[in-house]
Amino acid sequence: MPDQPFLVAIDWGTSSLRAALLDADGHVRQERSLPRGILTVPAGEFPAVFAQAVAGWPAQPGTPCLMSGMVGSRQGWVEAPYCACPAGFADLADKLAWVRPQHIAIVPGLSCEHAEVPDVMRGEETQVFGAIDLLGLHEALVVLPGTHSKWVRVIGGRIESFSTFMTGEFYALLRQHSILARTMPADDGALNEAAFVRGIQHAARSANLLHAAFSARTLSLFEQLPSDALPSYLSGLVIGEELRSQPLQGNTAPVVIVGSNALTARYQIALKSHGVTAACIGSEATWRGLWALARHMKAIA
Amino acid sequence: MPDQPFLVAIDWGTSSLRAALLDADGHVRQERSLPRGILTVPAGEFPAVFAQAVAGWPAQPGTPCLMSGMVGSRQGWVEAPYCACPAGFADLADKLAWVRPQHIAIVPGLSCEHAEVPDVMRGEETQVFGAIDLLGLHEALVVLPGTHSKWVRVIGGRIESFSTFMTGEFYALLRQHSILARTMPADDGALNEAAFVRGIQHAARSANLLHAAFSARTLSLFEQLPSDALPSYLSGLVIGEELRSQPLQGNTAPVVIVGSNALTARYQIALKSHGVTAACIGSEATWRGLWALARHMKAIA
Repeated sequence: MPDQPFLVAIDWGTSSLRAALLDADGHVRQERSLPRGILTVPAGEFPAVFAQAVAGWPAQPGTPCLMSGMVGSRQGWVEAPYCACPAGFADLADKLAWVRPQHIAIVPGLSCEHAEVPDVMRGEETQVFGAIDLLGLHEALVVLPGTHSKWVRVIGGRIESFSTFMTGEFYALLRQHSILARTMPADDGALNEAAFVRGIQHAARSANLLHAAFSARTLSLFEQLPSDALPSYLSGLVIGEELRSQPLQGNTAPVVIVGSNALTARYQIALKSHGVTAACIGSEATWRGLWALARHMKAIA
Repeated sequence: MPDQPFLVAIDWGTSSLRAALLDADGHVRQERSLPRGILTVPAGEFPAVFAQAVAGWPAQPGTPCLMSGMVGSRQGWVEAPYCACPAGFADLADKLAWVRPQHIAIVPGLSCEHAEVPDVMRGEETQVFGAIDLLGLHEALVVLPGTHSKWVRVIGGRIESFSTFMTGEFYALLRQHSILARTMPADDGALNEAAFVRGIQHAARSANLLHAAFSARTLSLFEQLPSDALPSYLSGLVIGEELRSQPLQGNTAPVVIVGSNALTARYQIALKSHGVTAACIGSEATWRGLWALARHMKAIA
């Protein structure tokens, strides 16, 4: 029955919920966004929000549903314990947290450890598997920019390890609450590419961001950078700090950026200034990851 | 006339004002603090606040007065243009900004340049000269911890160069406004030394603070660090990030920390964990710096 929906896919994060109805070939038949991130959902009301997200869709009552993201955290619908790296598709399928047996399940997040300190992700694992499936890759260095950026090493089709960088959050803190905010205009989101690249270059030759960030103040004080260029310059400083600690020189695997257009564009420019060319994948990565996982489960069922 | 006051010394910063009446030997005869940092003083009202700061003191109308700090900035009483490094006592004396000729003057801040980007200080130059005078040093690596920490290289009794690190401000941003703040108790200012050292050590082996800061979240999530230890741990991460970028290994000059007791104690512990012993100087550094400058001017007058 090729016309039957194959999967309800849900990307349920902290601040928003996105749902899609997918065909057997992974094609998105319906898509919907709700401002109902898990922080807005009181315990016990997840089923009602779920029903609202898929209301009116031509899915059979038993159509499988896979969800990824913070919905599997302790504050979510059902906790899906972290799966330790290295981890592949099969490991995620083994560790699904079932909300309703054989019907609705949550993909577990991943954990790994560096220097005896744990690191975690929830949702990005699904995007990574979706992205490498879309690109036909088994080896990759995948970067998922955001509030908490993830750098993910894929080896043999599995997620070997990853690291989190609080880049987006540091930018927002400096942009909104620091002394640097005082001389910056409201951010219209537009990118001043020259100022952005100048920030990346200054980050690359500075001791660290604690020092480099002060240059946004002094360049303004000495009128060497107009105030409307400061947000882009600061963005370059922070993203530049993230990039320069990555193993880009020794890396031979394809580099893939997964994220929104605005962010992937910035990371492409930043990587280019380090001599690295990267492929970009957008929000389709999540749908592809959940679809590939559903197909994998169907194959082993 | 040894009983005549020699100098009115004023440390006038962004958020507070400290004044002292000094004898010819540098002894503090009177001392006073007012919550009248320059941000609280409208243009034109500096003379009135100054009069309030020294009211009732047994100084002759013509007793010299030297001020240091943000009072010399564009938003201060009179702008004292930055003096370029390398700079010594004589350079500061040459560049004093006179509020009233031969009577009240403001010590200029210093500027230097790294990789074509300027760096600046106002007030710390006076503390550095005071500290090396108190300790009888001509070579030193001086650290002035704070909202914007300064690392200052003294060679041949002059300030050769310096770098600013926004350490205190980053700590406050992360402590008050970041996702890490959600799991932290109110900060009582007490130091959990074990957690602080753990933070310093984790900073030393992390890619950078963008990554290391996330460990405050995961260690809490995995219940590997109690929430009341998190503020000290975070303090260790941020100060550790500042320290590890310093040229401590190749340094042969004495290391001096100038600041409040609470901060110098933290930096002493942090430096010790890098194998470095440091001398500590408190608020007397400013008075000594202004006194030494006044004495220098008297000698050349």
